[in-house]
Amino acid sequence: MAAVKHTFLEARGFTMHVAETGNGPPLILLHGWPEFWATWEPMFVRLANRYRLIAPDFRGFGESGNPDRGRSDQAGPDVLADDIAAFMEAAGLERASFVGHDVGGYVMQRLALNHPNKVAGLFFFNCATHGVGTRWRDPQQINEIWYQTFHQMPFAPEFVGATRDSCRAYIGYFLRHWSYRKDAFEAVLERWIDNFLRPGNLQGGFNWYLSQNAGRLAVMSGSAPKPPKIRQPARVFWGRHDPVLRSTWIDVVGDYFEDVEAGIAEDAGHFVHYETPDAAAMEIDRFFKRIGYA
Amino acid sequence: MAAVKHTFLEARGFTMHVAETGNGPPLILLHGWPEFWATWEPMFVRLANRYRLIAPDFRGFGESGNPDRGRSDQAGPDVLADDIAAFMEAAGLERASFVGHDVGGYVMQRLALNHPNKVAGLFFFNCATHGVGTRWRDPQQINEIWYQTFHQMPFAPEFVGATRDSCRAYIGYFLRHWSYRKDAFEAVLERWIDNFLRPGNLQGGFNWYLSQNAGRLAVMSGSAPKPPKIRQPARVFWGRHDPVLRSTWIDVVGDYFEDVEAGIAEDAGHFVHYETPDAAAMEIDRFFKRIGYA
Repeated sequence: MAAVKHTFLEARGFTMHVAETGNGPPLILLHGWPEFWATWEPMFVRLANRYRLIAPDFRGFGESGNPDRGRSDQAGPDVLADDIAAFMEAAGLERASFVGHDVGGYVMQRLALNHPNKVAGLFFFNCATHGVGTRWRDPQQINEIWYQTFHQMPFAPEFVGATRDSCRAYIGYFLRHWSYRKDAFEAVLERWIDNFLRPGNLQGGFNWYLSQNAGRLAVMSGSAPKPPKIRQPARVFWGRHDPVLRSTWIDVVGDYFEDVEAGIAEDAGHFVHYETPDAAAMEIDRFFKRIGYA
Repeated sequence: MAAVKHTFLEARGFTMHVAETGNGPPLILLHGWPEFWATWEPMFVRLANRYRLIAPDFRGFGESGNPDRGRSDQAGPDVLADDIAAFMEAAGLERASFVGHDVGGYVMQRLALNHPNKVAGLFFFNCATHGVGTRWRDPQQINEIWYQTFHQMPFAPEFVGATRDSCRAYIGYFLRHWSYRKDAFEAVLERWIDNFLRPGNLQGGFNWYLSQNAGRLAVMSGSAPKPPKIRQPARVFWGRHDPVLRSTWIDVVGDYFEDVEAGIAEDAGHFVHYETPDAAAMEIDRFFKRIGYA
């Protein structure tokens, strides 16, 4: 595997960290929670010979800084999309394609709508759209969404970060619970804990939930306005067994994209790229070739 | 105020602790979470001259023992009602009236139905019935019910009990958040923390939520069978500002009781008995006099 280059750029009041490897058309890879750039390493090793792979850490995550100290509700999908757009300008990237999931999946939808000229194509692992609507609060979903509130509690970072064991219990719970292949992250768990114990990173991640709260409640209540359809070609590859972003929600994807190929990733849950990386990389490559990007 | 007598009785595989004071017709006072017998002290000082006040700690709470070590889903409302019935037999109480809220309010509904001959009358502070139904998962309720899931997490007791500060942050949050008079518990907070840090008491309380989970999801989905109406005379005195047990839910109380007087307690939230104890005691006394019990 080619070496990974780490770059730190100043933009929008904070230092953004970006990990990069490979050669070819640029793919910007956008992580979720509880993740950071390193969640894309399985794609780095499989796709570096065909793509320039660029994995930023969102503000408050990984090795990026954060313009907000402490709690903030100013780290929602539009803000993070603007961060990525600013990064592209700073890095001289006029246009790129995107791969992402979870937080990254929300941000990609805003990037496509708010910065359409910067986006060539979009590859989503799992993809919660506005169309999930009231299903977010179906009875069988209630015990899956509690963390979206807990992360807003003022005591949450102190709780999760009280000790290394606390942090491991918490982050490890989600990495296992959301995976179908339960041991997917076992080998890197301590690295994940190191990362989330970096000063500010627990609150940094939780700020996503503070920022998303009004929007998610509006979607849940059915009062959120429907966004326009995304025009760029898109692929959704949805882990069948994701307990929080349910693969049955694939049924509405077509209402939010003009040109989308949506299908199921077997034997995977929330972290398709980490649980079944061979299938994930093959699908990424196939899609970007099909749309003429690679 | 008369002295408080503490009794420890063996019944149903554990030692039940009961605090008692006063003289007159017996009132059994049933606490909620995060509480224990001492939550009734404001009633002890106001009603001991007219009633025999008997405040048990449920299994896993306060100074009671617990037949289950660790996690258990065998501590739901029917089990706790049977515990109270067994206590009454052990204490030679053939029949009594009840005052309760939160966990106690659920248990009182099961006592009235499963042990009708033991129950003379029922006084509820706030009263979540089966009729709350899907309103449990209304969008504006979503950020209020997360703890009902968090309490089921295997790591929850370690998180909350990691340090005395963690426990204070957590228990204190709910005592304040659910109160309208925010400082109601400030003077006793350290005593509450002492109590919940007693070995087993965090998991003991959380076992209520493990045990209630299937039932609450059935109620939320509308699939739970409607229980028969309770025949004993009942009073519901509902704190207007309770954020988790909403006073608007008083509208369905009449569907679950044949003889009920339901009204709003002003200037109070979840803990009417602790926030506005004068009004609470006056209403208890008025109600039990009206039904000819006192």
